[in-house]
Amino acid sequence: MTDQTALEATMRRALALAANGPATGPNPQVGCVLLSASGEVLAEGWHRGAGTPHAEVDALARLTPGAARGATAVVTLEPCNHTGRTGPCALALIDAGVARVVYAVSDPGVSSSGGAERLRAAGVDVAAGVLADAVEPFLADWLTAARLGRPFVTLKWASSLDGRAAAADGTSRWITGPEARLDVHRRRGACGAILVGTGTVLADDPALTARGADGQLLPGQPVPVVIGTRSIPADAALHSHPQTPLFFPTHDLAEVLRDLHERGIRRAFIEGGPTLASAFVAAGLIDEYLVYLAPTLLGGGRLALGDIGVASITEQRHLAIDHYDRLGDDLLVVARPR
Amino acid sequence: MTDQTALEATMRRALALAANGPATGPNPQVGCVLLSASGEVLAEGWHRGAGTPHAEVDALARLTPGAARGATAVVTLEPCNHTGRTGPCALALIDAGVARVVYAVSDPGVSSSGGAERLRAAGVDVAAGVLADAVEPFLADWLTAARLGRPFVTLKWASSLDGRAAAADGTSRWITGPEARLDVHRRRGACGAILVGTGTVLADDPALTARGADGQLLPGQPVPVVIGTRSIPADAALHSHPQTPLFFPTHDLAEVLRDLHERGIRRAFIEGGPTLASAFVAAGLIDEYLVYLAPTLLGGGRLALGDIGVASITEQRHLAIDHYDRLGDDLLVVARPR
Ligand SMILES: NC(=O)c1ccc[n+]([C@@H]2O[C@H](COP(=O)([O-])OP(=O)(O)OC[C@H]3O[C@@H](n4cnc5c(N)ncnc54)[C@H](OP(=O)(O)O)[C@@H]3O)[C@@H](O)[C@H]2O)c1
Ligand SMILES: NC(=O)c1ccc[n+]([C@@H]2O[C@H](COP(=O)([O-])OP(=O)(O)OC[C@H]3O[C@@H](n4cnc5c(N)ncnc54)[C@H](OP(=O)(O)O)[C@@H]3O)[C@@H](O)[C@H]2O)c1
Repeated sequence: MTDQTALEATMRRALALAANGPATGPNPQVGCVLLSASGEVLAEGWHRGAGTPHAEVDALARLTPGAARGATAVVTLEPCNHTGRTGPCALALIDAGVARVVYAVSDPGVSSSGGAERLRAAGVDVAAGVLADAVEPFLADWLTAARLGRPFVTLKWASSLDGRAAAADGTSRWITGPEARLDVHRRRGACGAILVGTGTVLADDPALTARGADGQLLPGQPVPVVIGTRSIPADAALHSHPQTPLFFPTHDLAEVLRDLHERGIRRAFIEGGPTLASAFVAAGLIDEYLVYLAPTLLGGGRLALGDIGVASITEQRHLAIDHYDRLGDDLLVVARPR
Repeated sequence: MTDQTALEATMRRALALAANGPATGPNPQVGCVLLSASGEVLAEGWHRGAGTPHAEVDALARLTPGAARGATAVVTLEPCNHTGRTGPCALALIDAGVARVVYAVSDPGVSSSGGAERLRAAGVDVAAGVLADAVEPFLADWLTAARLGRPFVTLKWASSLDGRAAAADGTSRWITGPEARLDVHRRRGACGAILVGTGTVLADDPALTARGADGQLLPGQPVPVVIGTRSIPADAALHSHPQTPLFFPTHDLAEVLRDLHERGIRRAFIEGGPTLASAFVAAGLIDEYLVYLAPTLLGGGRLALGDIGVASITEQRHLAIDHYDRLGDDLLVVARPR
């Protein structure tokens, strides 16, 4: 079992296993395959979310004691070196007598990295980077969060083709069509938190839930987060949210993100309005843009994005388009900062 | 030769012939096929532009006198009934002894229509609407111009994803990339006139020519048209345009379009800036929108479109998307009013 192609095929299997885990939790989705010295699959495992065994431990637990001696562990993420709610995976692999560990992506976490080193120190053969091109994008959001110590931040706005979020008098229901709105709700449901400014709550009294086509609540519900100093009515709709809302009476957005990260939130979804959105863009805190463009014109002064600190064309915020999607009559542009 | 399928195939051939003619002139592109009573092709013709024979006359001229007696003329547009630089085609067909005329689209022109009636009055068998679904779109711009008595109006703007045409200080070169700019020049070259406000001339001193990738002039050059009361410097770049510029010291846009139509201009290309563009939208004078969206953010107050007279969301200007095109990093949205 030294053949690179066979290792990559096994890593692909580990990646598929990883996807079984929850996408919105604080922990990464990780998969693991244990191979015998002759290359046969001994056991498979994946991480089922915070508080449950990591992928490596999940796989080891399926074997009788001693059965992993001399085995190769193929795992999507570098085994952790961190004692949290579970012990370090590096140690579990060493204790089980695993002879070789092959992983795709290194763990950038401050407290959890160092697993490869610990394995090597114990005499385990370690290889990194196998199929990294496929695993990196899969873990991109979580890796960004781990590297920056804040959630991966998606900014969403919906506008007319001429960049307006509402008509001159503030009316805006609905600019985009049902397909686009459903897409927004699906993406809300895949995030740990949904962020708005006090302005949006006071103007629209939004529910901030993730709902399906018939208005039913989706399985994943982001924590509603309100940023700003003004107080919110006691009977605001978001008080009926299945998750307890968080209030941050501040304009320090980096601080809010740090706090959310500490609470285990790895993906944040900014839903406006224009003031909060522009402040996030100006602060350089956006990792992904979702722009829903409706085939309509509004004119007037209600812009989806206000001042973002660009004075001259040389300072423009170039984006890299990830892709365009047609959603009914609307267009979704998915982009990242460049 | 009574078979509908065979007639449609012949009309398709006439349409292909029509496309040989010039697309930017004042006259429609028309093709004609003359069939014998037994269904064989006797002659083909098309219109080569203002001052040259119409398609029917072009086809008839290829036959010896009398050879068209009893023939069927298959022609994309209703034969004209108008004596202009050439005589009425309806009369030419009658004089040649054509027994039957089949056409796709009726002539909506005030002075040129009535050909079908004249043919019928002379005992010619007339059938309309054959393959109209294919010929209508081909003639759409010209038909709009003929129906409205003004050019078909295309509004183009280029903006960032957040709807800005320039950065806060007015700098804008370049928001879109080379592919998008080349596309604009190609489309300029297919229009009879390019319209700007005095504001754009005073701010940018544009050449308003249609140029290729290496800056060379394209074969078709739109007449530069400047609308507004302020005067333009005597050394403005547009004075070096291959076409003599037209100046309209007015804000009456409908009047400008009527005047251009009288000068034989059937397609007008509005290239801004925001004030002129918004005034055209507000006046309901746009037939086609070309929106070039660059993957960049600018913020600030330099909007591609200003006030267009929409006060509330119920008054929004819904567009029907014709198609989206990726041009390099940019996106072109082609839309029409709905
Ligand atoms: N089309 C869309 O996608 C969309 C989405 C959401 C909302 N909207 C519309 O947006 C409108 C509300 O606009 P808005 O701009 O007032 O709402 P907003 O951005 O949600 O709230 C603005 C408030 O955010 C607070 N804030 C927190 N951090 C800030 C910072 N760093 N800089 C500045 N302000 C900060 C301030 O609250 P304090 O003043 O309380 O401190 C500020 O007044 C509504 O009409 C709504 O319909 C549209
Ligand atoms: N991104 C793009 O696609 C694009 C394209 C072109 C220009 N631009 C930018 O636009 C800026 C110029 O903006 P602008 O708005 O001043 O230019 P503009 O729209 O070209 O010119 C405005 C002028 O048009 C005249 N006008 C004619 N009919 C009018 C009507 N019905 N209503 C109102 N005005 C009418 C007025 O001239 P009088 O006052 O003389 O009567 C008015 O001041 C420049 O910075 C340029 O770079 C951007």
